[in-house]
Amino acid sequence: MAGEVVALSGGVGGAKLALGLSRVLPPGALTVIANTGDDFRHLGLAISPDIDTLTYVLAGLDDPVRGWGRRDETWTFMAALRALGGPDWFNLGDGDLALHVERTRRLAEGAPLSAVTAAITARLGIGSRILPMTDDPVATRVLTDEGWMDFQPWFVGRRCEPAVSKVAFTGADAARPAPGVLAALAAPDLAAIVVCPSNPFVSIDPILAIPGLRDALVGAAAPVVAVSPIIAGAAVKGPTAKMMQELGAAPSAAAVAARYAGLVDIFVADEADGAIAVPPGMALVTAPTLMQSLEDRERLARVVLEAAQTWRPAS
Amino acid sequence: MAGEVVALSGGVGGAKLALGLSRVLPPGALTVIANTGDDFRHLGLAISPDIDTLTYVLAGLDDPVRGWGRRDETWTFMAALRALGGPDWFNLGDGDLALHVERTRRLAEGAPLSAVTAAITARLGIGSRILPMTDDPVATRVLTDEGWMDFQPWFVGRRCEPAVSKVAFTGADAARPAPGVLAALAAPDLAAIVVCPSNPFVSIDPILAIPGLRDALVGAAAPVVAVSPIIAGAAVKGPTAKMMQELGAAPSAAAVAARYAGLVDIFVADEADGAIAVPPGMALVTAPTLMQSLEDRERLARVVLEAAQTWRPAS
Repeated sequence: MAGEVVALSGGVGGAKLALGLSRVLPPGALTVIANTGDDFRHLGLAISPDIDTLTYVLAGLDDPVRGWGRRDETWTFMAALRALGGPDWFNLGDGDLALHVERTRRLAEGAPLSAVTAAITARLGIGSRILPMTDDPVATRVLTDEGWMDFQPWFVGRRCEPAVSKVAFTGADAARPAPGVLAALAAPDLAAIVVCPSNPFVSIDPILAIPGLRDALVGAAAPVVAVSPIIAGAAVKGPTAKMMQELGAAPSAAAVAARYAGLVDIFVADEADGAIAVPPGMALVTAPTLMQSLEDRERLARVVLEAAQTWRPAS
Repeated sequence: MAGEVVALSGGVGGAKLALGLSRVLPPGALTVIANTGDDFRHLGLAISPDIDTLTYVLAGLDDPVRGWGRRDETWTFMAALRALGGPDWFNLGDGDLALHVERTRRLAEGAPLSAVTAAITARLGIGSRILPMTDDPVATRVLTDEGWMDFQPWFVGRRCEPAVSKVAFTGADAARPAPGVLAALAAPDLAAIVVCPSNPFVSIDPILAIPGLRDALVGAAAPVVAVSPIIAGAAVKGPTAKMMQELGAAPSAAAVAARYAGLVDIFVADEADGAIAVPPGMALVTAPTLMQSLEDRERLARVVLEAAQTWRPAS
């Protein structure tokens, strides 16, 4: 496929498709815009969970079993921190720590997150670009039955248990798209914009909340292709289905498609879901979307790119 | 031996004797005043090399082979940091990192170094007190043939290679002894003040440079006992002998004793050095001072304490 491709992605699920895209596209053709609403400071370290996951996955350093963090990881730091009585609710592998320490060091020197990410991904030999959605601080927060909570304490600290009735992106209104983001979405040879099968509420919505981002997607000449994170009523990973129920939507691919009305041109649902209803003007493609093997990732990437290539706007 | 004992210590050599003292004294009788002139910020982390070494040694967590850092250490962080192009001249083990991260976190919350050290040593079950010489920033710097250098870049980064002509303790003039330091030295039941076999120039001198510290030693009712860090013209570890030569002193136990004139009441030299000359008013004790086994540490501790116990001021 000729042309550039931009993917919007959260962590694990999105990174799988991003890897597939990076492998079937020509080198350098893929730009991933990463959610940074999950970013937080912990133990004084600047942690960017979705950028981290994308970095490890695209560098081939990810742990294939856990789905997050690095392969061949050791856990000496956490054991020692626990012995010292330090906060141990967020697991940090020894190798993973290096990324956070080095990022924090470079940020403290004054580099923006986008520059730090570019330097690190280049150093790790990643051919695709990973762009944070913004260099400005944006914090995803959830209103739960226990009150407002920061994202990571809810997501990791409480394992998504408190029911969510609202999601906010503190700082998003004043945030500017990171350098390169709007240019990537306006590239003259842009072939597709891919909304990865990430959580719509806490992975894709924060990206779209950055002023200018949603308009850039809607106004792009290239088709916007979204892949459903819901298969047969369940999320492959994470709290997407649970959140949909709590937020009053049926946990279904059709509900995700409805949510993306006016934004997405092509919706890729799993063949298990069959001919779901999609909003007017949205094309439906069904395909196997569960990405277990590397081949699955590449096959789904090809489905997405082919759908974009053959798409013609409704006249 | 009844009464309290205060030891002045740098890192490895001093920690060996501190361990011996802690084992032959009643629980809680030992207070170690630690040099903090080596402390520095690295990768955004607050590192206190001498407090770290004392902490690991007194907690039984030290690596018996390397002499610094923790036993059963792993090095995944350093390998990952190197892969990211981060600064790798200062080795940080994965478990060791936990101490620096937790210290940095607590300091950022506003706790002084003495309180952080007390909390950590208590948590690790250390019965002796480790007091930083000061909670204020003091930086040991060396004037070398390449100009002024910070301590760690010279000591670790350059392996003490550039010749030293001067040592300075930036900030010492304005520094106040940490809480507990002067009280420990003025304790009514103080039985001995021990100057550990640490480097006089960069481990003991910074402690003595804190206003009030030297006077407290000189004015103490208890005898001050120093153990020579030089045996038969060589330092057991580190650059002491090399620095003595560069600073114009013979690398000998006698030169160390001369340096401690007016401060030390009893000088413990190795029996290999025999009846060295000591300044007037200073008593000489010779004993095996090389501490290889745990028994060596305890035996030397007993020699030091017995010398203090039998000492009577010259009338």
